[in-house]
Amino acid sequence: SNTLRIAVLAGDGIGTEVTAATLSVLEPLAKRHGIGLAYEHLRAGAFCYRDTGTAMSEATFAAAAGADAILLGAMGWPEIRTEDGTEIAPQLDLRFRLNLYAGVRPVRAIPGVPVALADPRAQALDIVLVRESTEGLFHSRGKGVVTYDAAEETLRITRATTEKLARFSFALARRRAATRQKPGRQKPGLVTLVDKANVFRAFAFMRGVFAGVAEHFPDVAYRQHYVDAMALDLVRRPWDFDVLPMENMFGDILTDLGAGLVGGMGFSPSADIGDDHAVFQPAHGTAPDIAGKGLANPTATLLSAAMMLDWLAARGAGQGFADAAQELTAAVDAAFADGLRTPDIGGRHGTADAARAVAAKIG
Amino acid sequence: SNTLRIAVLAGDGIGTEVTAATLSVLEPLAKRHGIGLAYEHLRAGAFCYRDTGTAMSEATFAAAAGADAILLGAMGWPEIRTEDGTEIAPQLDLRFRLNLYAGVRPVRAIPGVPVALADPRAQALDIVLVRESTEGLFHSRGKGVVTYDAAEETLRITRATTEKLARFSFALARRRAATRQKPGRQKPGLVTLVDKANVFRAFAFMRGVFAGVAEHFPDVAYRQHYVDAMALDLVRRPWDFDVLPMENMFGDILTDLGAGLVGGMGFSPSADIGDDHAVFQPAHGTAPDIAGKGLANPTATLLSAAMMLDWLAARGAGQGFADAAQELTAAVDAAFADGLRTPDIGGRHGTADAARAVAAKIG
Ligand SMILES: CC(C)[C@H](C(=O)O)[C@@H](O)C(=O)O
Ligand SMILES: CC(C)[C@H](C(=O)O)[C@@H](O)C(=O)O
Repeated sequence: SNTLRIAVLAGDGIGTEVTAATLSVLEPLAKRHGIGLAYEHLRAGAFCYRDTGTAMSEATFAAAAGADAILLGAMGWPEIRTEDGTEIAPQLDLRFRLNLYAGVRPVRAIPGVPVALADPRAQALDIVLVRESTEGLFHSRGKGVVTYDAAEETLRITRATTEKLARFSFALARRRAATRQKPGRQKPGLVTLVDKANVFRAFAFMRGVFAGVAEHFPDVAYRQHYVDAMALDLVRRPWDFDVLPMENMFGDILTDLGAGLVGGMGFSPSADIGDDHAVFQPAHGTAPDIAGKGLANPTATLLSAAMMLDWLAARGAGQGFADAAQELTAAVDAAFADGLRTPDIGGRHGTADAARAVAAKIG
Repeated sequence: SNTLRIAVLAGDGIGTEVTAATLSVLEPLAKRHGIGLAYEHLRAGAFCYRDTGTAMSEATFAAAAGADAILLGAMGWPEIRTEDGTEIAPQLDLRFRLNLYAGVRPVRAIPGVPVALADPRAQALDIVLVRESTEGLFHSRGKGVVTYDAAEETLRITRATTEKLARFSFALARRRAATRQKPGRQKPGLVTLVDKANVFRAFAFMRGVFAGVAEHFPDVAYRQHYVDAMALDLVRRPWDFDVLPMENMFGDILTDLGAGLVGGMGFSPSADIGDDHAVFQPAHGTAPDIAGKGLANPTATLLSAAMMLDWLAARGAGQGFADAAQELTAAVDAAFADGLRTPDIGGRHGTADAARAVAAKIG
């Protein structure tokens, strides 16, 4: 039968807790939909660096790259740093080395989870930010030039990656529009490139590349928006947008803002997708303050796992994977609609409670 | 007597309208407080570029630089661009050429103006973002290198400017704490540097410089926060912060986000301050869609003018200026508390109505 290999990098801190919770929910789900998932547990992260001198060994990288998908918890630890003082973040290495250019970060309100904005439209928010994840300012990671007097970093945007990012974004908008085709929700897809083309040539360049790709998607509307105006509109009228591609650093900032709108990092899944590989991980960090206490909210990881099943389905794994993805997302929604309240939103349901509540909605 | 020279660059679009409205309010205010203000009207901006071939002549620049303060409306126009496709923005030239390193952007809720966040604490929000305004990514403005395949920009952070930015931020936090010393509001000042030191050496460098300056302000608390986490916290718990200095591009993004929290750009004043010069201007643009219709909200410009009077007072212009600044801010607050509603918040009071309502609260 069709068993897929999932590399599991649980990582540091609460990464291990939310990953375990998610695997416990995937078990009954996989059974129910007759889908085969074989996990390969791999070690990477800050504590791995402390113990072995490397944050992710070449063997681990190769195993992850060889799997059908990668499920990641969270990595990094404040006190464990590289020699130049920056954080241990092998998740960034995965993005770069596996060319995972499309960082997909849905911003979707979950029924029952309090949203930040007062406007009632925020309660039905459903947009997606696509953070380019292999270049932009992050091209400069580890390459910054520092003297006594000054420091410099280089932001780099390439035609090749921008073209892929654009194609990915338009295809996503098209697919979302098709899924929305229920009576009364006939909205065409909309891609809004977020840039700073009014000041920087590199972003004017990015606009040019997007415009070329847009012509191949006449069914999808295309606009551009300056990043500062976008930050404002994310708190004033986010419901007017749909798919929002942007440069890496802009995406790092605005995806966290987006998470803040719909309950915080505990509710924000993500997928870093390339042509041949993909990493699925919660957008949150390792949360040293609550690590080991069983208090971490596993929702972001559960929803990331749903994105993983969906991505595998789209790559031909079969309808069972698509159904499982949909049921997992629906189960999360149903659990919160029925009163599940994790500590990050003022509730008393810890990691295991949350996993149990979601699992109970399956089947 | 003590008459100060104010260079007035009203600019393009609604820039001219909000500037005229503000001058009309400053007239009775100046009389009442016995302060002398002499205006020198200067032309600059996109239409100036179209008509004369230069967005700001050297004579205009010299006149602005020679004034005691500069009051600016808004500049730029979508259809009028420089040869590399970027926007006409002489306000950026002023920041660079006059070394206005501290872009002060208060985020303060005005009673009666709807805030974006549902949490009631947002209604008393009062924090200040300080956007470094002469370097960072904007160092690269007009210098981006573009080939067919790729484009690059350089982010630059210098010790000299960072030291000034840090000193400015700590002094501002100290001053704000002193002003807060009313019964029940005994909160010490807090400076939170917003950076991305976990990934970029240039921001680790920035942290190092700030730490050195922090030692000279033992009465002010000092913390650091990553820019992505800050974007999230600006929508989750902005009331936990006080003074937030940051790099130019980060500041461009987060100050607009901040504006979105408290009514939008129409309510967001700003001051770009250097050692010897300062420009005061609303954070909004020229709003081509409503330009010439008398609908623009002049509040941001009125509050910017109040910041100007306050800055002049701090530089020795006299108590009359400080009193006038305080009264102007209070008059804006009182007008909105009494029902003034501009079109940007769904009301029907245009530019002239708003100016009249604020003027009526003076004296
Ligand atoms: C941990 C950090 C280096 C990382 C990033 O900046 O990309 C994180 O913020 C993220 O968004 O995945
Ligand atoms: C008009 C634009 C170039 C400018 C900037 O990016 O600095 C504006 O957004 C601002 O914040 O003053």
